[in-house]
Amino acid sequence: MHSSTLSIKLKQNAYLLNPKIMESILGAVATADKDRLINSIRPLHAADLADILEQISKSERKNLVALWGTAIDGEVLSELEEGVRDEILLRLPEKVLVNALRRLESDKIVYLLENLSEAMQGKLLKSLEISDRRAVEQALKYSEHTAGRLMQCELVALPEHWTVGDSINLLRSALQLPESFYNVVVVSPKFHPIGTVQLGRLMSSNRSIKLVDLLDQKFQTISVTQSQEDVAYAFKQYHLVSAPVVDTDGRLVGTITIDDVMEVLEEETEQDLKRLTGLGKEELSDSIFNIVKTRFPWLLTNLFTAIVVSLVIAQFATTIQAIVALAVLMPIVASMGGNAGTQTLTLAVRAIATRDLTRANGRRVVLREFSVGIINGLIFAGIMGLVGYVWYDSIGLGIVLAFAMIFNLIIAGLSGVLLPMGLSKMGVDPALASAVFLTTFTDIIGFLSFLGLATIFLI
Amino acid sequence: MHSSTLSIKLKQNAYLLNPKIMESILGAVATADKDRLINSIRPLHAADLADILEQISKSERKNLVALWGTAIDGEVLSELEEGVRDEILLRLPEKVLVNALRRLESDKIVYLLENLSEAMQGKLLKSLEISDRRAVEQALKYSEHTAGRLMQCELVALPEHWTVGDSINLLRSALQLPESFYNVVVVSPKFHPIGTVQLGRLMSSNRSIKLVDLLDQKFQTISVTQSQEDVAYAFKQYHLVSAPVVDTDGRLVGTITIDDVMEVLEEETEQDLKRLTGLGKEELSDSIFNIVKTRFPWLLTNLFTAIVVSLVIAQFATTIQAIVALAVLMPIVASMGGNAGTQTLTLAVRAIATRDLTRANGRRVVLREFSVGIINGLIFAGIMGLVGYVWYDSIGLGIVLAFAMIFNLIIAGLSGVLLPMGLSKMGVDPALASAVFLTTFTDIIGFLSFLGLATIFLI
Repeated sequence: MHSSTLSIKLKQNAYLLNPKIMESILGAVATADKDRLINSIRPLHAADLADILEQISKSERKNLVALWGTAIDGEVLSELEEGVRDEILLRLPEKVLVNALRRLESDKIVYLLENLSEAMQGKLLKSLEISDRRAVEQALKYSEHTAGRLMQCELVALPEHWTVGDSINLLRSALQLPESFYNVVVVSPKFHPIGTVQLGRLMSSNRSIKLVDLLDQKFQTISVTQSQEDVAYAFKQYHLVSAPVVDTDGRLVGTITIDDVMEVLEEETEQDLKRLTGLGKEELSDSIFNIVKTRFPWLLTNLFTAIVVSLVIAQFATTIQAIVALAVLMPIVASMGGNAGTQTLTLAVRAIATRDLTRANGRRVVLREFSVGIINGLIFAGIMGLVGYVWYDSIGLGIVLAFAMIFNLIIAGLSGVLLPMGLSKMGVDPALASAVFLTTFTDIIGFLSFLGLATIFLI
Repeated sequence: MHSSTLSIKLKQNAYLLNPKIMESILGAVATADKDRLINSIRPLHAADLADILEQISKSERKNLVALWGTAIDGEVLSELEEGVRDEILLRLPEKVLVNALRRLESDKIVYLLENLSEAMQGKLLKSLEISDRRAVEQALKYSEHTAGRLMQCELVALPEHWTVGDSINLLRSALQLPESFYNVVVVSPKFHPIGTVQLGRLMSSNRSIKLVDLLDQKFQTISVTQSQEDVAYAFKQYHLVSAPVVDTDGRLVGTITIDDVMEVLEEETEQDLKRLTGLGKEELSDSIFNIVKTRFPWLLTNLFTAIVVSLVIAQFATTIQAIVALAVLMPIVASMGGNAGTQTLTLAVRAIATRDLTRANGRRVVLREFSVGIINGLIFAGIMGLVGYVWYDSIGLGIVLAFAMIFNLIIAGLSGVLLPMGLSKMGVDPALASAVFLTTFTDIIGFLSFLGLATIFLI
C-alpha cells in the first residue's frame, strides 16, 4: 500500500507531488536503477504515481514502465487517464498484465480492458477467477457511460429473513469481502434487492434484530442501463454513498459507490465547460498530432461562421468607406453582445444540467433575461452614445451606437437562454450550443443593427 | 422522511420533479389549503422540495412558506442555495426556526446560521443543546470555504486500547449516533486521531481483536484551516469517504464526509466555468436587480477592453479607408485567434485546477502549444489566403491575411497557456484570466498584425 507520506503532503498546502520525488524517479529511470525506482515509488499513493506517469514525456514513460517491469501495480494503471492507459497497456507483456489485474475490483478491471483488442481481452479474461471473469464480461457488454460499466460486482447481499447476528457471523467468516463497503443489500429469494442497511445501524443494533427492521429509508436502486450522468445526479441530489444496481429483470448485479460517481460528476461539469468553448476530448498528455486533429474541426467551424459574419459586413462596404469610424466602433457593439450572451448561455447550460432550469421556471427566467437586457442595454447605450459622440464629435453616430447597443444586449440575453432551452427540449446537449454559435449570432445582430442604422440615418 | 417516490422518479429517466406535484403544491398554496400542501410535500425528498422552492417565484415562495408554518423542515432549509435560504430565513419567526434547527447535524446548522445577524445567531444558539451549541459556535469562527466550516462534529471516536467487542458494546448502547458514519476514529488519550477503522472491517472482525490492528492504511487528517478546494482534491485523488478534522493542536474536532465534499467539488469546477466567462456568484433565483448588479462590472470591463481594441483599429483608419476589404476581413483574423486562445485557456485552467499541469510538464505543454499553433496557423493561413485571394482577387491581400493568421494562432496558443500559468505562479486563481482578457489580447494582436501588414505591403 502507498500511504505513508500522505498526511505530510496535504499539510504542504494543496499540491502534493514533491518535485524531489519526481527528480528521484526520473533519475532512477535515466540510470536504469531499478532498486532506486522501486524505493522512490513505494511511498506514493497509486493516484499520485498515475499523475506522475501522465506528466512525464512519452519516452520517459516508456523507460519508466520498462524498468518497473513485472512489479507494475494494477491500482496505478486503473488511475490513469484513457490516453496514457492505452499507450502503456499496449506495451505491457501479457504476463505483466495478468499479474497487474489480479486482486483489482471488477470495475477497475473493466476500465483496463475496455479498449484492448478482443483477442487480448479474451486472453486476460481467462486468467481471472471465474466469478470475476463473468462479472467483467457482463459489464463489458453494457454501453460506455452507463451504470453497468460504472458498477463493481463486489458487494455484500444478505437474505431478508436474517438477523443482525446472522449477518455478523457471515461477515466474520467470509473469506473475501469488498475492499470497502458502506452498507449491506437485503435481497429476496429471487435476488431482488428490497433495501439496504447502513453498516452504522447494523453495528449498533442487537444480534436478535431483523435486517428488515433496519432498512435504510433513502433506498434507491439503479438500472444497469441508466446513464452515468443520471446516476451522478441521483447521488448528489440524495446524498447517496452507495446504491445497488439491478439488471432489466430487477435482479441485483452490482453496486455503485460514491468515489466512482465523484469522478463522473466532475467529468460532466468539465464536459460542459469544454463543449462551451469548443474543446473536444483532449487530454493534457495527448500528442501534438492528436491535438491538431481534435482542435481542427472546431477552428474550421469557427472560420466558417467568421466568414458568414464578414459577408454581413461586406454588405455595408460603401457605408464603411463613407464613415470609417464605423469600422473602428463596430467591434465594440459585437463584443458587448457576445459577452452578455455568453454569460447568460453559461448560466443557462449549467442550470439545465443541474436541473435548476425547468418548465416550471423557464418562462420567468426568459422574462428576467429580457428585463436585464433592457436595463443593461439602456445603461451601456448611454455610456456608448457618449463615447461615440465625444470621440467622433457626431450626435448621429452616438445615437446609432446607443440604439445598436440596446438592441444587441436584449437579443444576446434572450438567445443565451432560449438557445440552450430549445436544444434541451429537442433532446440535444445544450452545451453544444457553444459560445461560437452564440457569438456568431450576436456578431451578426450587432453588425447588422449598427451598420444598418448607420446606413439609414447617417448616409 | 421523504423517500417513497424516489425509485419511481429515477426510472422516469433523469428528471425527477413531476410537474403534477408542482401543480398540486402551487394549487394548495393558491387556495391556502394547508392539508393539501402537507400531503403534496410529504412524499418528497428534502432536496427536491428545496429545488421546488428555488424554482417558484418569490411571491409563491412567500405564500408557501407562510402556509407551511411551524411544520417547516430544517433538512429542506439546509438544502437551499444561499440566496433563497437567506430570503426565507429572514421571514421565519424565531420559534419556527428553533424548531427547524432541532435534530439537524452541526454542519447544516452552521449553513443556516452563517448569514444571520449576530443577535439572531445568539438567540438561536441558546436554543440548541450545549454540545451542539459549542460545535456550531466554534465552526462559525472558522473562515468560509475552509474545512472548519465544512465539517460536522457528529462522529464516533474510540480509545486506542479498545477491542472490536468494546466498540460494538458502546455502539449498541449509545443514545445518539451520527445519522450516517462510515468509520470510527481511533484517538489517543489526548484526543489526537491515530487512525480510522472502516465499519466493514470492524464488523467482519472478532470481538477480541484490537482496533489498532484494523487501522485503515489510507488514513488522512485534515486541518480546520485547510481550504475546501484542497479538501475536495484530497477526497477525489485518494478516494476518501470520510476524514477526521483536527484543530491547530492536532486534536480531533470533527469529520468531513464525502457528500459535503461532492458539492464542493462541483462548485469548484463550476466556479472555473463561471469565472472564465465572467459570471459572478449569480444564482438562477436571483432578482433582476441583483443580476444587473453582478453582471454590470464585468460588462463595463468588457466595454473598456473593447474600446482599447477600437483604439488599435483607429490607428489604421486611413488604411481601411483605402482598402475597405480590410474592415470586412479583419473580424475573421481576430475571431480565429480568440477561439484558439480560449480553447487553450480552458484546458490550461482546468489542468491547473486538477493538478495535472505542474512545473514538471509546464515547459513541455508550452512547447506543444507553440507547435500546435504553428501547424494550425499554417493550415488556416493556406485556407484564408485562398479565401482572401478568391474573394477580392488580390494576391497581396491573400498573403497578408495568411501571415496574420499564422502569427495570431501562435500567439493565441502561447498566451492561452502562459497567462494562467503565470497567474497561478503569482498565487492568483488562473480562471480569473478569463476569456475576456485573453480575447482582448488576441484581438489586439490580430488587428495589429493584419492591419499593420496591410499598411506596410498593400498601401
